Formats: sequence, C-alpha cells, structure tokens
Amino acid sequence: MKISRSQKPTVKPYLSARPHSRGQASWHIIRFKPSVTLKPRMNPILNPRLFSFIGGREGPWKAIESRAITGDPLPEIERLSIVADNVVSAPGAAWVLRGATSNERYVTRPEKEQLLAKQPALGRLEADCAVLIPIRKNAAWWALTQDERRRIFEERSHHTRIGLEYLPAIARRLHHCRDLSTAEPFDFLTWFEFAEADTAAFDNLLASLRASEEWQYVEREVEVRLAH
Amino acid sequence: MKISRSQKPTVKPYLSARPHSRGQASWHIIRFKPSVTLKPRMNPILNPRLFSFIGGREGPWKAIESRAITGDPLPEIERLSIVADNVVSAPGAAWVLRGATSNERYVTRPEKEQLLAKQPALGRLEADCAVLIPIRKNAAWWALTQDERRRIFEERSHHTRIGLEYLPAIARRLHHCRDLSTAEPFDFLTWFEFAEADTAAFDNLLASLRASEEWQYVEREVEVRLAH
Repeated sequence: MKISRSQKPTVKPYLSARPHSRGQASWHIIRFKPSVTLKPRMNPILNPRLFSFIGGREGPWKAIESRAITGDPLPEIERLSIVADNVVSAPGAAWVLRGATSNERYVTRPEKEQLLAKQPALGRLEADCAVLIPIRKNAAWWALTQDERRRIFEERSHHTRIGLEYLPAIARRLHHCRDLSTAEPFDFLTWFEFAEADTAAFDNLLASLRASEEWQYVEREVEVRLAH
Repeated sequence: MKISRSQKPTVKPYLSARPHSRGQASWHIIRFKPSVTLKPRMNPILNPRLFSFIGGREGPWKAIESRAITGDPLPEIERLSIVADNVVSAPGAAWVLRGATSNERYVTRPEKEQLLAKQPALGRLEADCAVLIPIRKNAAWWALTQDERRRIFEERSHHTRIGLEYLPAIARRLHHCRDLSTAEPFDFLTWFEFAEADTAAFDNLLASLRASEEWQYVEREVEVRLAH
C-alpha cells in the first residue's frame, strides 16, 4: 500500500489564533482555513452546533446576579455574549464556557412530541429575562448505565414532565460540554429565556428540579441571572 | 455588579500551533498554555478521553487494507498512529480522525456487567491485528428518540449481544466524534484488536452487525485493517 503522488496529502491546515474583532469585543477563536484538497468534512471546521458563552463586560445580556448553588462559583461578570463559534478566550472576559447542542439522551417519542408541540423558540421579543445554569454531574452519575440514568431522570425525578408544565412560558436550550475536545468545567450549560412576569414560575421550576433525586448527582451548579 | 480590580480577568491563553516533534512524526497539536489565574478546569485543556488517529506513513500499525463499506473511502495510508491528544494536522499524513471515549449510551446494567466480566484490555501482546472502523449514521438516526434508538440498537439488532459472543477474543474501544468542537467526518471511531487466528471470528462479527437493522442508518463506513 503505497501512497501515490496524486493521493499524497496536500492539506496544509492553517490555524489562526489572532484576536478577532467584532464590535468592542476581541475574541480568540479557533478557526481553520484549510488550503484544500481532502473532502470538506475532512478539514477541522467548527461543529455547527457549538456555542460559546462569554462572561465579562460586553454583550447584550446584563448580569443581575450570579451565585453558586453547589460547588465553586464563577467569577462575577457585568454582561454576557453568546457566540456560535469556538471562542477559546476573550480578552477582558471573566470566563468562557462552551457547549454543543446534540441529540436528546432521555426523552421517549411521546415526550418529544409533547415538547415539540409546546416549546417556544429562543429570542422572543417579550423574553427579557434569561438564566444560564452550568451544571456538572458527579462520577457516580456517569458510571450509571442508560436505563439507570433514565429511571432517575424521568421515572423518579420527572425532569421532562416538570419542564413541560412550564411550557410555553420558558424557552430552553441545552448544550453538552462533556464530550468537547477541551476539558470543560461543566457537563451541561442550560440556557433559559422568559418574560419578567414569569420569574416566579421559573423559580418554581428550578425548585422542583433541585428537590429531585437527579439533583443528588449534581456536584457543581451555578445560576447566572440576566436581563436585556 | 462591577468587576473589581482583583477579579479582573488575568488569563492570557496561549495557543500554540507549532509542529510538535515526537520521533519521526511532526504533528500540529492544539495546546493551551494558560498564563494563570482562573480555576484549573476553567482553562481550555485537553479532554483526557480524547484520541487522535493519524493515518499516513508513520506509526506502529501497518495498514493492510482500507476500503469503503458505505459512502466515500478514506485516502490510503501506509501506517497508523494513535495519540492521546488533540492532533489537528500531521504533515505527511493522509488524514487525522479524532474521537473521545464517553459514557455508554445504550447498555443496561446486566449487559454492562456481562461486558465488564468478559472484555479484554487493549494492547495484549497476542493481539497483532487491529481494525479501525469509522462510521457516520444518517440524520434519520439522530432524529430518533432514545427509546427508539435503543430498540433498534439492541432489541432488534442485538448489537451488544452479538459483541458479547466474540469476547474475550476481540478487544474494542469506542470513540465518539459527533459532539467534538470540530465538525468531524464520522460520528464514531471503533477500534478493534485481536490475534490473527481470530480474524475469521472478527469477520463474522462484522457480517452480523452489518446485516442488522441498525446498519440501515449507517451512511458512511470505512474499514481499515492493520497489523503489527
């Protein structure tokens, strides 16, 4: 098996780590500018489902309160940006958290149908409040098998059923961090958006989930409240 | 919420994309040398479960045959290296594939117990044959809910039960690519090791899985056979 001249690898990946200017912010973004020839998906390009949450002094969301529920807090911030890119660092930022949306890991078809029928999109005009909740689960959780995790998640903690009660008021997007290329401080980033009038409902939602058996496996949780 | 002087972000991440010399190979590895102060897990360091498979002219495994089972082939290679690092490109290499080991997505507790009792470690002296099988499943698979995927995976395709029949002869490690920071050409990289005498058994294992309902969702599969 010889590599013929025509098959010889000609990809010369280009790795840019320069600060990237967008408005006032300056971010370090990992970008790859492939100078061709393998098939498009052979070059390291961004996972299109990846988002970076940048906490610092810039961004459309103003931080109202940041507190640790379990484990270490996050450094305090003034504002937050969300970028659909792999931001590695942002000069002037207190922290950057990354996560990718993915396929659901627990819901059944009937549950998914109910969610799809009721869940609102992000970015609604009336949703002037947002909450970022980064969570890490402990080693005991990850050592459980799928059937055990599902039983705790839904049959005993009613995670999806509780969430459904607060739809369509509260929009939500889940980002997975555990399987990214970098070691992340959290396993999940959950992002919620709702109108200020629904704040009490949101608080009830959190209280119900935090009282559940599933939450006994949460070893770090931070709650960052934000407003437009 | 002001950021006080003492809380001011002082992390100045350092991104090295220089060729990294190890023996004859020269790899571009994404490394992060943080010049301090956020908590250790706040700095982008490597996911410790991440592996890079480098196909080219170097490495301990000699390529015997590489063929596309479904979809596009991979460029041919002479040898293969496996590196526990995030290799972005390797000059002289035909391709680099990355994947991370993760929690199991389908097995039940009894199935896991059976696997743990029978599965051998990688790197056995007698295992002089290896096969790398990168796989991508189609959008229909990823749109299925967990219960639907489990039913196809095990109740109807007997994926775990078939695998168990070939233990302890065939060692296996599964790497997930779908949720990495970069868009990868495959969803999974499966790595197998076995003694040459078990080649026919391995062929039977592959034939059984490829005849299953689960494989109808495979839209790209390449089989790279290697030997020490």
